[in-house]
Amino acid sequence: MTTPDLLKQVAFIKEIDKLKYIQRRTKLFNSDRHENDAEHSWHLAMMTLVLAGHANEAIDMLKVLKMVLIHDLVEIDAGDTFIYDTVKNHTNTDEERLAAQRIFGLLPEAQVQDFIAVWEEFEEGQTAEARFARTMDRFEPLLQNASNQGGTWAEFNVPYDKVYAKKKAIADGSATIWAYADGLLKESMEKGILKKSEDF
Amino acid sequence: MTTPDLLKQVAFIKEIDKLKYIQRRTKLFNSDRHENDAEHSWHLAMMTLVLAGHANEAIDMLKVLKMVLIHDLVEIDAGDTFIYDTVKNHTNTDEERLAAQRIFGLLPEAQVQDFIAVWEEFEEGQTAEARFARTMDRFEPLLQNASNQGGTWAEFNVPYDKVYAKKKAIADGSATIWAYADGLLKESMEKGILKKSEDF
Repeated sequence: MTTPDLLKQVAFIKEIDKLKYIQRRTKLFNSDRHENDAEHSWHLAMMTLVLAGHANEAIDMLKVLKMVLIHDLVEIDAGDTFIYDTVKNHTNTDEERLAAQRIFGLLPEAQVQDFIAVWEEFEEGQTAEARFARTMDRFEPLLQNASNQGGTWAEFNVPYDKVYAKKKAIADGSATIWAYADGLLKESMEKGILKKSEDF
Repeated sequence: MTTPDLLKQVAFIKEIDKLKYIQRRTKLFNSDRHENDAEHSWHLAMMTLVLAGHANEAIDMLKVLKMVLIHDLVEIDAGDTFIYDTVKNHTNTDEERLAAQRIFGLLPEAQVQDFIAVWEEFEEGQTAEARFARTMDRFEPLLQNASNQGGTWAEFNVPYDKVYAKKKAIADGSATIWAYADGLLKESMEKGILKKSEDF
């Protein structure tokens, strides 16, 4: 690689520092401090290293790591959308596509295409790697909320059936992890930190 | 993998959340807020993805990512040691070894051995992957200080020769990156944000 490439890469490295300022709704384990997107992305990468053996299908670990490390970069421009938001669609808005083009666009051309392709693969969720990466992305806040007296479930009054509907996709990446997560949701409901649904 | 394995892995995933509270001396780009170890580790992983093409030798990218993602976990127990600290040795103290045993020790046995081996390989710095991972670890704060009016160099009054002595190891992982970093150090000295050494 050449020096002009390196200058572009350094510009990208500086730009993505902004991910550390994007606050999520969820909080750190047993804490009152919100998590930011960089911390969240690091945690998903660590979970991938540790939990890959539970994947339903053979996965390319490097690809999954790439996905979880970059999956939220578009939020530098588009902001974090709450998973239980009923107005704004969480997935792949035009705003996010533009953000991907601007942010990854800082890189040398070959890398631009590669990173955008990996980000789109994650968003579409149709490959073994994307399914497992999305399992990580749904499992982390579930663990946080369960250890934070219900966390965002309690704070935003989200009932069991809505949480269940979002979380059951964990099974697409890993049946073992879903069996555990499903138990944790039921336990949270029994403890009263996740409220029963209206129709229960 | 079995459910008993998963329970151990979840305990580890919760424990490492503490990395988000370990504050570094350096600050975010163009900012007054300190960086924490989780944010730093995420940034090194992103730099690895983007800069691997500049490595002097062929590297196993997955191994390097593993190294940079876990390299600071021992600081959960041992704390962050400032690279220019003249009293405490930065590398591989007994305290850090004990921390590695306790923290990675939460995982299933096969993973304990694997993670400790990768962490030790990083600390020893004798393989192509460790050299490149250490290049990332030295390059990130250099970029931050250069864009933060000298950052910790100015705050702790560290002169050019001491910075140079610590940073020249960047060349062991990448000659291209070192050529750029070396220029940035000289430029910082000329701007007056990195003071000239006594003997200049």
